[in-house]
Amino acid sequence: MQRKTKEEVALLYQQMQDHICEQLEKADGKGKFKEDVWQRAEGGGGKTRIFEQGAIIEKGGVAFSAVHGPTPEKIKASLGIEEADFFATGVSVVIHPYSPMVPIIHMNIRYFELENGVHWFGGGIDLTPHYIVAEDAAYFHRQLKSTCETFDPTYYPRFKTWADDYFYLKHREETRGIGGIFFDRLTSSSTMQFQQLLDFSLSLAKIFPEIYAYFMHKNSPLPYGPKHKEWQNLRRGRYVEFNLVWDSGTKFGLDSHGRTESILMSMPPQAEWTYGYQAEPGTQEAFTLEHLKKGMDWITFQS
Amino acid sequence: MQRKTKEEVALLYQQMQDHICEQLEKADGKGKFKEDVWQRAEGGGGKTRIFEQGAIIEKGGVAFSAVHGPTPEKIKASLGIEEADFFATGVSVVIHPYSPMVPIIHMNIRYFELENGVHWFGGGIDLTPHYIVAEDAAYFHRQLKSTCETFDPTYYPRFKTWADDYFYLKHREETRGIGGIFFDRLTSSSTMQFQQLLDFSLSLAKIFPEIYAYFMHKNSPLPYGPKHKEWQNLRRGRYVEFNLVWDSGTKFGLDSHGRTESILMSMPPQAEWTYGYQAEPGTQEAFTLEHLKKGMDWITFQS
Repeated sequence: MQRKTKEEVALLYQQMQDHICEQLEKADGKGKFKEDVWQRAEGGGGKTRIFEQGAIIEKGGVAFSAVHGPTPEKIKASLGIEEADFFATGVSVVIHPYSPMVPIIHMNIRYFELENGVHWFGGGIDLTPHYIVAEDAAYFHRQLKSTCETFDPTYYPRFKTWADDYFYLKHREETRGIGGIFFDRLTSSSTMQFQQLLDFSLSLAKIFPEIYAYFMHKNSPLPYGPKHKEWQNLRRGRYVEFNLVWDSGTKFGLDSHGRTESILMSMPPQAEWTYGYQAEPGTQEAFTLEHLKKGMDWITFQS
Repeated sequence: MQRKTKEEVALLYQQMQDHICEQLEKADGKGKFKEDVWQRAEGGGGKTRIFEQGAIIEKGGVAFSAVHGPTPEKIKASLGIEEADFFATGVSVVIHPYSPMVPIIHMNIRYFELENGVHWFGGGIDLTPHYIVAEDAAYFHRQLKSTCETFDPTYYPRFKTWADDYFYLKHREETRGIGGIFFDRLTSSSTMQFQQLLDFSLSLAKIFPEIYAYFMHKNSPLPYGPKHKEWQNLRRGRYVEFNLVWDSGTKFGLDSHGRTESILMSMPPQAEWTYGYQAEPGTQEAFTLEHLKKGMDWITFQS
């Protein structure tokens, strides 16, 4: 058996974009994706799909890209290599719902290969509830854990810690949400191992719409008022802060002439900033802030 | 004559904070500043003043700080120096008005000194109109030019170009607004030169509220509708992008455990992001986007 080529990986990823879009449209029941096809001057291109006029989803993007060409300077420097062509393909999703009771979700799978054979997989799924709810957090992490365990018993604990460390706002001393799993630069030394990493990334893309449909259906009927919307917009502000200040993918993209609109499709529809916001003790807002911490065991967490 | 000590500079800067707050309260006629006094664990502290419930100003901050202690690693590295104590004092202002017809404004003056005698001044004023208006742009740049010319005929052209380069969103290929003046690390080799740089920075703090009061009075009576508010929120989104992605002061502060709430007082009250926004040709929005360019001569600019 030959290991899959980079073109085959890209094709499988593109199918994952189709799958995710189809499932999200079904779960929302009203909104539709609109596609923007783009080319990259140096090689390759992508399809950015934006969800509009949804019943539950206010702003969502599912982006696929497969790009190639001379390796960007920063990557060459970080790898200590000379001139080499690269190939990168991936699917990225960020969903911002109307309701503050429904969490924001993010998923990404990506594959990178250099012409010298160096290659790796990266990705993850993480959840940013506007309000932390123990039952929802446990459900989310149980889904990720059981998916991980189909592949390797060390994946969930390793990638859960990695997500805690990655999705962290150092300047706020808080996590972006309740984390999830995150991994990068996982490489393989055999065809079997390559296939396993590929399958793992595909399994995340498959489980992603199931997980999110669960929250869409369960939480979108919950009542909320202006106070909850205001809190949602403050949390969206923190989401913006993470993505623009700390997210290395976003920073790299903006710095290296990536496609700005595709990179910033992760931005919320609106956000707010209030100087020195203080949550009233004992409220759901205060509860949420108190638990945006690294190292939480969300599966056994009780409120 | 002895040159002013760092404590005397700090005192003069603190008086500038008082002056600016007093003048802005007068111009707004309704809102008042609320003061937050804070201490820095490593030495020094500040007074952050936030404007609330204004008639014209929706969110504004005027921050003074005077901090000292061991020089942060990044500054030491950039200067190539070993252990040394630093002292830094400054005043920063950002004003976001309710009306999209009134521009956003930013001003900063700062003084930095190392115990080995190395010292410099930095600062500037720049304007971010939601809608570019030739007459307003000319007024603004004329004020800056004439203030600069009181000190040095080279200041305006040099610092205007510096502002164009500094307030630039590389990922959008647009300037934040119509620029203004920006300068950094201006050092002196004589008491007279030191006094001149100090006076120049003070003159900016003095002219700042006059300039902004002019726009408050002239533009806040102009009518606007929901379409203008939406555009304002998109432009505020770009303001967020500049500050969080490109502003080296903000990045340095967030990275070096600065006081987050004071650093992010520059954030607008709200912001919006729309995927792939396109201004309709021939509109005021399109006109504005077309002119967010470096190297514009705003004083002679005609629309």
